[in-house]
Amino acid sequence: MKALVIGGAGFIGSHLCEALLAEGSRVVCVDDFSLGTADNISHLSENTDFILYEKDASVLKNLEEVFEKEHPDHVFHLAANSDIQASALNPEVEYKNTYTTTFQILCCMRKFKIKKLFFASTSAVYGDKKDVILDENTSALSPVSYYGAAKLGSEALISAFSYMNDMETLIFRFPNVIGPKLTHGVIYDFLRKLEKDPQRLQILGDGEQTKPYIYVSDLIDAIILLKDKGERNPVLYNVGTKGATSVTAIADIVCGELGLSDVQYDYTGGQGGWKGDVPKFRYCTDKIQSMGWSAKYSSDEAVRKAVKNNIKR
Amino acid sequence: MKALVIGGAGFIGSHLCEALLAEGSRVVCVDDFSLGTADNISHLSENTDFILYEKDASVLKNLEEVFEKEHPDHVFHLAANSDIQASALNPEVEYKNTYTTTFQILCCMRKFKIKKLFFASTSAVYGDKKDVILDENTSALSPVSYYGAAKLGSEALISAFSYMNDMETLIFRFPNVIGPKLTHGVIYDFLRKLEKDPQRLQILGDGEQTKPYIYVSDLIDAIILLKDKGERNPVLYNVGTKGATSVTAIADIVCGELGLSDVQYDYTGGQGGWKGDVPKFRYCTDKIQSMGWSAKYSSDEAVRKAVKNNIKR
Repeated sequence: MKALVIGGAGFIGSHLCEALLAEGSRVVCVDDFSLGTADNISHLSENTDFILYEKDASVLKNLEEVFEKEHPDHVFHLAANSDIQASALNPEVEYKNTYTTTFQILCCMRKFKIKKLFFASTSAVYGDKKDVILDENTSALSPVSYYGAAKLGSEALISAFSYMNDMETLIFRFPNVIGPKLTHGVIYDFLRKLEKDPQRLQILGDGEQTKPYIYVSDLIDAIILLKDKGERNPVLYNVGTKGATSVTAIADIVCGELGLSDVQYDYTGGQGGWKGDVPKFRYCTDKIQSMGWSAKYSSDEAVRKAVKNNIKR
Repeated sequence: MKALVIGGAGFIGSHLCEALLAEGSRVVCVDDFSLGTADNISHLSENTDFILYEKDASVLKNLEEVFEKEHPDHVFHLAANSDIQASALNPEVEYKNTYTTTFQILCCMRKFKIKKLFFASTSAVYGDKKDVILDENTSALSPVSYYGAAKLGSEALISAFSYMNDMETLIFRFPNVIGPKLTHGVIYDFLRKLEKDPQRLQILGDGEQTKPYIYVSDLIDAIILLKDKGERNPVLYNVGTKGATSVTAIADIVCGELGLSDVQYDYTGGQGGWKGDVPKFRYCTDKIQSMGWSAKYSSDEAVRKAVKNNIKR
């Protein structure tokens, strides 16, 4: 199998490239290194089954060159802006990096008759549903972030392209994904802040924001297990983990692992960390569990493990 | 009130411009005449409360000029590709004319702090749900046309922009809209075909496609009634009518009104008229009826009325 991993040098993408190589696939990686890094995939560069194209996937011509040359069997689309806080200031980032990239990938798949697609979507498509336990049939999706909007728009495009071109597509909606090589997010931020000042920690919001955090290897296991289960009417799974972790609990774990005590927490206040943040949500993962997958790590365990392997030694 | 009607020279847009002028609003119309026509609005050109800009609304600079100069209070966004069959051959049309236009309009509203938005969406966002009666809480929306996908993506964008920028937004999802000045669709096609050959009529599909058709004045009444009822979490209504009309029944009505008998119907066969067509659907309109609106014309009445006023005399 020849896999095309778009966004393959990113945090999740680089772990997926590794896993696909490990199971014997050839891997073509496309990344523009805007969020992904050469460092994330440098250990794969000697592998003869791994090819890297440094290209912006939102530009049709760039993608066409890769499709023309490589003729992949299976596209794994993980290219997007993944920093919700950043795009809150500039929605153009989502229009270009998230939605347009999806559109151009689908146009290439249509043109080159590539039939298998995996798409990385997000819990942000649901919007802020308060106490509703989110499952794949939750209705009236109303994203509150430009990021969630561009991902939901991408899902809609995939639905139409899949139907019109007889593709087999699989969509995962995942919450916060953490693990080695984090590039942003609350754990990343706390570690950076405490490095500068180990006595005080600024915490966005009231610290009560409580979300499920999934460890990246659990997510990768789920992709590998189900990647060939796509259908013309896209098959959609929430991918999550047991429990959820509050931001204050994360701060405690980070301080604990750094061996810091008596750190003063300065809360900026308010329910969400920033505008467009969904402060609390709960995730139903019964559907994917019925397929034989479940996360090895609970949310709290995932946080502790990710903190450990993101501390600079 | 100064209304900005984008797509204001189109089939629905031009009727809306008329209605807004009639209730005393000033109307700024933007249209690129790709589907709209100068003819549709020529009778408004003498009205000093009516201003026309012939511009492509998918280009940010064009829109910014209009917003800068006119500072509208309320945006009515009806600009889109509206010909599903056409975009089935070229999804780029939906990316540019439907999705990108929505994005640029929202960016201008954000920049110029315009808070009120009406958006014309469609039953095509639901996809082909077979026997499900479609209401606003129908879940797992999975459009089968590029048109439906771009409209659902637009709804998602509107949700996020509305939340992030405290807008008041109203979204109507309507099925087939008919009335004077049709530019495409089954009635338009049948009239053109029978003009050429009054003895035979080619009918796409098996003729059993059965959908609700709403008369344009009913739709305009609903927009005028509810236009100020938008909220930050977009208020969404299915707008429909009683009953539904099959394609063969439409052919019978068209032939009857043209005074033709014994026309031979040649069916192309298959359930849908074209790939991406949703052959049958039923629409729940309880929510909008609870707001005091209902359609004057049933689907069959709307078809007959639209046939009458589209016959060239």
